[in-house]
Amino acid sequence: MTFDGVFAPLPTPFDDRDGVDLARWRTALTHWVATPLTGFVVLGSNGEAGLIDDDEAEAIVGEARACIPRHRPLIVGVGRESTVATIRNARRAAVLGADAVLVRTPGLFKSQMTGDAFLRHYRAVADASPVPVLLYNFAAFTGVNLSPATVATLATHPNIVGIKESGSDLAQISDFVTMTPSGFSVLAGSASTFFAALSAGAVGGILALAGLLPDACVELYAMTQAGRVADARDLQRRLLPVARLISTTYGVPGLKAACREIGVDVGLPRQPLAPATADAIAVIRDALNSFREVNA
Amino acid sequence: MTFDGVFAPLPTPFDDRDGVDLARWRTALTHWVATPLTGFVVLGSNGEAGLIDDDEAEAIVGEARACIPRHRPLIVGVGRESTVATIRNARRAAVLGADAVLVRTPGLFKSQMTGDAFLRHYRAVADASPVPVLLYNFAAFTGVNLSPATVATLATHPNIVGIKESGSDLAQISDFVTMTPSGFSVLAGSASTFFAALSAGAVGGILALAGLLPDACVELYAMTQAGRVADARDLQRRLLPVARLISTTYGVPGLKAACREIGVDVGLPRQPLAPATADAIAVIRDALNSFREVNA
Amino acid sequence: MTFDGVFAPLPTPFDDRDGVDLARWRTALTHWVATPLTGFVVLGSNGEAGLIDDDEAEAIVGEARACIPRHRPLIVGVGRESTVATIRNARRAAVLGADAVLVRTPGLFKSQMTGDAFLRHYRAVADASPVPVLLYNFAAFTGVNLSPATVATLATHPNIVGIKESGSDLAQISDFVTMTPSGFSVLAGSASTFFAALSAGAVGGILALAGLLPDACVELYAMTQAGRVADARDLQRRLLPVARLISTTYGVPGLKAACREIGVDVGLPRQPLAPATADAIAVIRDALNSFREVNA
Amino acid sequence: MTFDGVFAPLPTPFDDRDGVDLARWRTALTHWVATPLTGFVVLGSNGEAGLIDDDEAEAIVGEARACIPRHRPLIVGVGRESTVATIRNARRAAVLGADAVLVRTPGLFKSQMTGDAFLRHYRAVADASPVPVLLYNFAAFTGVNLSPATVATLATHPNIVGIKESGSDLAQISDFVTMTPSGFSVLAGSASTFFAALSAGAVGGILALAGLLPDACVELYAMTQAGRVADARDLQRRLLPVARLISTTYGVPGLKAACREIGVDVGLPRQPLAPATADAIAVIRDALNSFREVNA
Repeated sequence: MTFDGVFAPLPTPFDDRDGVDLARWRTALTHWVATPLTGFVVLGSNGEAGLIDDDEAEAIVGEARACIPRHRPLIVGVGRESTVATIRNARRAAVLGADAVLVRTPGLFKSQMTGDAFLRHYRAVADASPVPVLLYNFAAFTGVNLSPATVATLATHPNIVGIKESGSDLAQISDFVTMTPSGFSVLAGSASTFFAALSAGAVGGILALAGLLPDACVELYAMTQAGRVADARDLQRRLLPVARLISTTYGVPGLKAACREIGVDVGLPRQPLAPATADAIAVIRDALNSFREVNA
Repeated sequence: MTFDGVFAPLPTPFDDRDGVDLARWRTALTHWVATPLTGFVVLGSNGEAGLIDDDEAEAIVGEARACIPRHRPLIVGVGRESTVATIRNARRAAVLGADAVLVRTPGLFKSQMTGDAFLRHYRAVADASPVPVLLYNFAAFTGVNLSPATVATLATHPNIVGIKESGSDLAQISDFVTMTPSGFSVLAGSASTFFAALSAGAVGGILALAGLLPDACVELYAMTQAGRVADARDLQRRLLPVARLISTTYGVPGLKAACREIGVDVGLPRQPLAPATADAIAVIRDALNSFREVNA
Repeated sequence: MTFDGVFAPLPTPFDDRDGVDLARWRTALTHWVATPLTGFVVLGSNGEAGLIDDDEAEAIVGEARACIPRHRPLIVGVGRESTVATIRNARRAAVLGADAVLVRTPGLFKSQMTGDAFLRHYRAVADASPVPVLLYNFAAFTGVNLSPATVATLATHPNIVGIKESGSDLAQISDFVTMTPSGFSVLAGSASTFFAALSAGAVGGILALAGLLPDACVELYAMTQAGRVADARDLQRRLLPVARLISTTYGVPGLKAACREIGVDVGLPRQPLAPATADAIAVIRDALNSFREVNA
Repeated sequence: MTFDGVFAPLPTPFDDRDGVDLARWRTALTHWVATPLTGFVVLGSNGEAGLIDDDEAEAIVGEARACIPRHRPLIVGVGRESTVATIRNARRAAVLGADAVLVRTPGLFKSQMTGDAFLRHYRAVADASPVPVLLYNFAAFTGVNLSPATVATLATHPNIVGIKESGSDLAQISDFVTMTPSGFSVLAGSASTFFAALSAGAVGGILALAGLLPDACVELYAMTQAGRVADARDLQRRLLPVARLISTTYGVPGLKAACREIGVDVGLPRQPLAPATADAIAVIRDALNSFREVNA
């Protein structure tokens, strides 16, 4: 199983009392499984993993695996601040049927998170994980950065198979591609830079936008595979406004509001996140409509 | 019970297999209870709270309360990323005998953590917590900042009684003092700025250094209370080298190494933190010896 | 001549066509010379030095020296990006009667501005300058920081006599005081932290606020000299709102608007700076009135 | 005259006494004119413009125009902190034969540099400049950023014809391309991201590397024009190590050392910049040799 292609990081549904809503989850999964997406990420940062406890996580992953056919990759976010908790999570995810685990960098003790600290952490996790490990670098979220040199070293571990990079620094993405062996999957983590990352050698993406506009994201990927550079660039441009709204502008609350707009009800974000405002929802709706009209 | 005075945030002992070591914990607590410190913080950032799971936390707090006399304040760090988990933690800490809870800012979803988000989060926690709440602002750790305006608003809540500020921006500490009612305790969170913060109106501190050099930290506090400004400034200067080594320079690994130097064995930090190197230990030892010699 | 005490960095007057206005300058200098301030800084950052060319600078400094009695210190900002231009400026300022020169850190080539680069730059300037040199650290402005270790080394140069620190990091100001010989003047660069910096051992300040409220700033300094800590802290609190408005909030345009409010017309800032808006002027006026009322 | 293509920002030669060396300049220009580069930038940040005074600038530009044929574009860096000095510089450059002026953002008064301030500054410069204006955004250098919205507005001015973006944030480069009219030239400012920027719609670059490896840079550009994506990406990867060494790693001192390696003597950087160390020179030499060997 490779991890090239277009993946959607799925938002976690909550009910009206801030609890995990498994019924909404099943309905939503049915929707997403019917799309042409390569696979799915559960309990990533867009899945509000940081706000969910271990028991809830188990139910969420179990349900996801039940709904997602075995041949479609299911990647589970398992990164925690401590190495031991990350390992425990990775093992549990494997038991529940994850095809790979996505491990964000620990970031609380920023000044201590040297390259060596990352090497020790990720090697210990990769040694212990029954399923392949994807690194996950998201400096805007964690406040620390996995350097190309560290990624290059980790890429030689047989159980570390790729990286999701959520930043838009193309120089760094280029370095990841250049400094790792072929077969190591460099994945864009942001739809805003999907086309550019693919141009630089990324082999796919884990994109919040892919849960909203799966056909367009898959089409963009196919265009670059087919060498249709001008078409891909043009599609990228048209996707950009929506991509921004559900990431930098409105974040997870924006993503959840957009899901409702396309008919997938994943409820509201968990506190301390606040629901998108009526104004934000209107802006998102307009952007989705504009995209659809031009694309129609 | 007020929260003025000098508090030590206690490091959490681990055994050689990265597990919580309750025997070491009891011995260490016995040592600290015998000092003139006002009270203690358990499961703060120096206590590696981010690396400890809920069951472990329960044992750590229970043991601490058993060792710390009821008239000495025990403050428990309970901040989590989600409001619901923070509330659950605060209730559990209260049941276990905490006199107050220390609630660090959520910080994962940085762009969403507006003043309004902090107001909602802290009000919900303070409404639900059976014991008083201390805010905890540590921008270098969390990547987000509690503004003076937000703190001023929160200070009007009857169950929010103070703030620990770990930054060294005196302009902000001055604002916290100026913009909150008397009775709201502004506490320095870093020994490096203890004297300056007291000069600006802080009423105490939660200082990693207080666990190592409790007499000196209490003396510095008493000097400022007595108006002995020059003496206090001089003592601050002599404390500065050690203060730096166990915070910005070597972090928690440095603090734990320093504890061993003064005869308190709290083991090594939990992974991904690495133990202090031999070089770091030698530097810390020299600084402690230099302080003691001059002070003798 | 020492550089302890309270100094005002004077704004440079422009006429309605964005040219230097020497008539306004003379009138304004007459006003400031009549205050109890220790001395004056001309062509600092508040003097829009970065927007003024060499010929203009010469006229501004010449006029200032003509108006400021010889026994009142006149400090001239001469820092440029190149060492050679800084030296040329320092020599010219000395010829025009400067008692000392204030030399901001070069900051364009940020990644190259290591401690060694600063040592070379400042030593070359101090060797060549006919008058004493004051270092000037303003990281928020230049993007680079003079570390305590670098300042400690430079403080041993016989022609480097002090430093203006415009940041509010009290840990760093404490280090400057601790790590330099007595006789080396550490000066606060921001009224927002004036009291705290004096508490930490600073011997004075170069404060935009001192040009607006000279009596109060001098009184605050005298209070700390006399050990009246509580009074000084209280005065600091009352000064804070105005101090903020003319620095972080509205910058030089705010300072110039405030000058007009106190009857000193220094015109508008030079482009690309924009004049303070009517709203900003009203806020500044209210803050000045509030201060005066309470103080009356 | 359009500004699409590959431009080299030329380093300014100094003699052994830190003075501008016009003889070296002529020799170096003769070398560069013989390359297939589209055109040249004089007195950009790589030309140490911030360290050069007005008289020197005049001689440098005059000599450049004398050596560069009229049909090859000569772009002159004229940005200063004040609007009035920038306009004066732009006019002087036009008189001396510049085909366009490159205007970096003012950045000293960071908090005042709002979008409106940039609009006023650039419009005033563009209104007054006898030759077309290229915006120049280099946040790592100036500490301020020209937002896509501001660039989009400025792009409608008839005398503002393009932008050099030196950052590697591809999301921002994409926005510049998307939000400006065709005919507005978005130029990469860093060889590290040249291919990615071209993929995103940039129409050329102003690249320090182009002065060292002009044939390769021009070839990379031609490959992307011809749709040879895989070849271009491969060449980009091989160029990356050298590109890094003369920008982020060693800066202008590294660029000048590299020039000597290819037989172009532009002397040493001006103080406070320090010459590249022997170690740095060896690293640069190895990287240049490695590139040539693979390319041969």
